[in-house]
Amino acid sequence: LVFTTDLFLEDRHFRRTDHPAGAAGHKTLARGLSDLAAMGASPRFCLLSLAIPGWADDPWIDEYLNGFLALATRSGIPLAGGDLARQERFAADIVACGGVPRGMALRRSGARVGDWIFVSGQLGGAALGLETGSGAAWERHLRPEPRLSLGRQLLAWGATAAIDVSDGLARDLHRLCLASGVTAALDSIPLFPGASLAQGLHGGDDYELVFTLPAPLGASVFEDLPLTCIGRIGAGEPGALSLAGQALDPAGYDHFQTP
Amino acid sequence: LVFTTDLFLEDRHFRRTDHPAGAAGHKTLARGLSDLAAMGASPRFCLLSLAIPGWADDPWIDEYLNGFLALATRSGIPLAGGDLARQERFAADIVACGGVPRGMALRRSGARVGDWIFVSGQLGGAALGLETGSGAAWERHLRPEPRLSLGRQLLAWGATAAIDVSDGLARDLHRLCLASGVTAALDSIPLFPGASLAQGLHGGDDYELVFTLPAPLGASVFEDLPLTCIGRIGAGEPGALSLAGQALDPAGYDHFQTP
Repeated sequence: LVFTTDLFLEDRHFRRTDHPAGAAGHKTLARGLSDLAAMGASPRFCLLSLAIPGWADDPWIDEYLNGFLALATRSGIPLAGGDLARQERFAADIVACGGVPRGMALRRSGARVGDWIFVSGQLGGAALGLETGSGAAWERHLRPEPRLSLGRQLLAWGATAAIDVSDGLARDLHRLCLASGVTAALDSIPLFPGASLAQGLHGGDDYELVFTLPAPLGASVFEDLPLTCIGRIGAGEPGALSLAGQALDPAGYDHFQTP
Repeated sequence: LVFTTDLFLEDRHFRRTDHPAGAAGHKTLARGLSDLAAMGASPRFCLLSLAIPGWADDPWIDEYLNGFLALATRSGIPLAGGDLARQERFAADIVACGGVPRGMALRRSGARVGDWIFVSGQLGGAALGLETGSGAAWERHLRPEPRLSLGRQLLAWGATAAIDVSDGLARDLHRLCLASGVTAALDSIPLFPGASLAQGLHGGDDYELVFTLPAPLGASVFEDLPLTCIGRIGAGEPGALSLAGQALDPAGYDHFQTP
């Protein structure tokens, strides 16, 4: 069994003026499920703790829970319990438990020099959506899709390490490289249509999977989800990143202001 | 395996002006461990999610974690992970996992007509401490002791149901009776020295265990902890309570204002 816990806070992870309640419910659970996916785990059960403010009336809470439960049902994860309290701002803590064959859980620490680096889907969509507030990118920001099926497939492919892109590709890949004691040299990355390179590198909330394999993949699509080889793992200062031969700052949050 | 999750929120469950950081850390974990005790479970691991405000400087957080970890070490429960975020008010969500022999976990729903009702320790101390802010009662409010050892012993004694007293004896016993479809007739309850009957019946945060047994106990002490028979389970409107023959309102929070 593997476990993950993730906070989802008003004005930190969502704004009630911008985010429909159903999307907030969806995203609360998607964050937990994405962590399970990155470990190659299958969902077993989840717990939800909610701190509820005065502004959240019954219809809002109903819609929030409907969004949560729709994704839970589709993902086959029962909501087994939780806690309720009052607070001025809405806060949720999602705990997700998954099952994975003993000793097989994917970690950040298993990448080895020479491994190939892959990413699912396209990057920067959620950041673009947050900027524009409309269209497919906004929908992607509101309702990210945890890559559970791909996560399980990574076990069969013999992936050496994986992480989900929640804080931006550069930052999360940096964490993976630090944990593995390796470096990463990127060639190019697949961008969401309309997203800038900065959004693709440093935008959060995409919830795609980055993973490393000892050999290149034959297929470039898994269940309609594109998979792109974006570079190789190398030796050197642990955590160091490069893109097209140039050093890449993992803490790209500032860059993000000037795409 | 059994799981519990419990929020611990600034200005709801503690005030930073009154509560030392170490006590807040202790209490965060004690709430989770008390739930494990009420299920007869042995601690396995815990997860801690923290939302940290600007006022919480490094010394405060260190002291908070020291209080948390001191109880964790003493209780043999490793802190296996968690999450961190920023928020204006401090918030913690504790997830505790415990182990119990399959099918043996104590529940609220197992009490049967004729069972004897017991409570550990003395009631109302935490409420008295909150009122006076001093002495042994205040210490009890700050650092409740989860009854893990007693919880495990309840399995051996064949307890039929149990719950921890977190929201007041009347309210929590009402929940147990509702879940079991029974009533409870109380004779008298053991009060913390100086506590009023209202504080003993309706004061929260005592974290003693209330449990039901099919036969009276021989001993009235377990590992220096007094155990008191406070009444019997009966038939009737599920959840109904009485004290010394008088109906007892389980939602006694208002009464609490006029002890």
